[in-house]
Amino acid sequence: MSRKSPLSVAIIGVGLVGSELISQLLSLPSPSPFKLVSLSSSKRTVFSQDGLSVTPESWTSTLASSASTPDLVALAEQLSTLPRAVLVDNTAAQNVAEVYPEFLKRGVHVVTPNKKAFSGTQQLYDEILKTSKESGARWLNESTVGAGLPVVQTLKDLVATGDKVKKIEGVFSGTMSYIFNEFSTASPGGPAFSSVVRIAREKGYTEPHPADDLNGADVARKLAILARSIPSLQSTLPEGYLSVSTRSLVPDALASVASGSEFVDRLSGFDAEYEKLRDEARAEGSVLRFVGVIDVETGIVKADLEKYPATHPFATSLGGSDNIIMFHTERYSPRPLIVQGAGAGAAVTAMGVMSDLLKLVL
Amino acid sequence: MSRKSPLSVAIIGVGLVGSELISQLLSLPSPSPFKLVSLSSSKRTVFSQDGLSVTPESWTSTLASSASTPDLVALAEQLSTLPRAVLVDNTAAQNVAEVYPEFLKRGVHVVTPNKKAFSGTQQLYDEILKTSKESGARWLNESTVGAGLPVVQTLKDLVATGDKVKKIEGVFSGTMSYIFNEFSTASPGGPAFSSVVRIAREKGYTEPHPADDLNGADVARKLAILARSIPSLQSTLPEGYLSVSTRSLVPDALASVASGSEFVDRLSGFDAEYEKLRDEARAEGSVLRFVGVIDVETGIVKADLEKYPATHPFATSLGGSDNIIMFHTERYSPRPLIVQGAGAGAAVTAMGVMSDLLKLVL
Repeated sequence: MSRKSPLSVAIIGVGLVGSELISQLLSLPSPSPFKLVSLSSSKRTVFSQDGLSVTPESWTSTLASSASTPDLVALAEQLSTLPRAVLVDNTAAQNVAEVYPEFLKRGVHVVTPNKKAFSGTQQLYDEILKTSKESGARWLNESTVGAGLPVVQTLKDLVATGDKVKKIEGVFSGTMSYIFNEFSTASPGGPAFSSVVRIAREKGYTEPHPADDLNGADVARKLAILARSIPSLQSTLPEGYLSVSTRSLVPDALASVASGSEFVDRLSGFDAEYEKLRDEARAEGSVLRFVGVIDVETGIVKADLEKYPATHPFATSLGGSDNIIMFHTERYSPRPLIVQGAGAGAAVTAMGVMSDLLKLVL
Repeated sequence: MSRKSPLSVAIIGVGLVGSELISQLLSLPSPSPFKLVSLSSSKRTVFSQDGLSVTPESWTSTLASSASTPDLVALAEQLSTLPRAVLVDNTAAQNVAEVYPEFLKRGVHVVTPNKKAFSGTQQLYDEILKTSKESGARWLNESTVGAGLPVVQTLKDLVATGDKVKKIEGVFSGTMSYIFNEFSTASPGGPAFSSVVRIAREKGYTEPHPADDLNGADVARKLAILARSIPSLQSTLPEGYLSVSTRSLVPDALASVASGSEFVDRLSGFDAEYEKLRDEARAEGSVLRFVGVIDVETGIVKADLEKYPATHPFATSLGGSDNIIMFHTERYSPRPLIVQGAGAGAAVTAMGVMSDLLKLVL
């Protein structure tokens, strides 16, 4: 048995996560199991089948000086001529996600933190499964849920080793975690909902437009990804995250407010409603948390605002913008398997991508 | 790119974990990525390079009717003639652990829940690293710490992706977890230490002789395994777990009591000492937990009885015989990455072994 040849890596997307990944990749001790053969932004691309001559300092200028524009299908062709290759998609782009089957059918692995392909239509998801199965090329998406936390692989391991998942329940959004950890505690009083959202936005914990977090779509996408990893739920969400029962925290009256700052200003008009929910929960000895629930027996997949007793780990153990995910299974019963920690941020997301890459060269 | 040929699997040890693993392995959907080529108990062995014709129902009688006795070096030779092979050691035997280098140097992977090889002398550990590096054969030991919980791989991923581990802190023993969750709570009063140990023994949560848990050696072994996965600590425990600073909860006067039941009877003579420790902790608003700590900066690796505030996850979130492990790193800071859940038992241990096997065929 001998060492394999290096895995050729093509990276699309050079924003925060992409830059961090390139930095992690180029910092591996020599001899590296990887050869970086391509880099692409939305405007430019570079490719060298023998490996790009770049350093952590030089890659940005190398890419900036390229005259070539990205062509995904051409890239799939180029990678398919190499002995072993992987596409790393660090974008959040739907159009990149839709081309994964082109790579997989040519035997090129796909590794990505991009949720779009796995949380969208059943058709695209099935096409990914099918092309992967036929060619043997793998797709790995650890960092689509909980960033670098071991969530997706843990679920895959539970399923692959014959455990029966009964329920998955968790706080899947760092933004929602921060907002409700601050807003709803076991103690009386507390800040207004709109002030918490305003501070979260100022700290950069929300999207520029907080409605993009408060609408629950991000949580619904993560639920779709996990639910589809459970055999009995693989085909129960035909429209992906749109099929997930999702409570939006965006007041109807503010649904069409296009500016993030105007949205936060006008959100204060709804503070009394949120305060009422908080008081109701507290009267029961509970706190509010925006959670995702996958109930395998009933087939219910929902992103919702729920009450949890003040003694529950979602109340006692959470802090900051942590994610927490509980797996209730036949083996992990009555007490669940729990994973907790920062579930967002460039460094930990890139770590999840990198650990997927390392699985391919084990 | 095409699918690889099946990985040939040789299993040593057919006790609780071994039986469960064989059951999981033979239950995989067809076509299985594995071919079971050998089974060995301490007395008998069977081998077929084309794969054993066994079912979940028949393997015990097939093994029982064999006239061959196990020969580890011969097995290593046999496996080395196959294209891809793995030894799975489900024993807790030192003599099996010492032969891993023979397998690794012949290109045979090693997967095991056996802690002995990785928590023993530096010499054996270094020999394993060296032979693995030279041949490219891998050793995977996820289930040596926390059974099926994603602990070892998470640490390896943190290290491999360039994170800096600062501190690992956790309750690593299901037995110790149960004992102190019952014995030391935030509420006044509580059962005598010896009664808790007695009940734990009756429930099968302890070894037949509870001193084998209370001496802290199991926790020290897990700490040695994790510490050695951190580059700066790789060579700082020359005698492995014996080099870990370990508090034994076995009273000196009972050190030579050979019978488990006599040990529990006589332990009641020391209840006052434990009660004093519990009262001291409670006076500070704390609980007692037997924990393992790896402090990377100071190089301190210790298994000790420590006090934790009643608001700490070790006090609020733990229950039953759960393990909980916190990774404090540069990226996971100030809030750690936490993994929690059942850390012992045949089904979850076999799951950890199985997920290692699946990594080899990804």
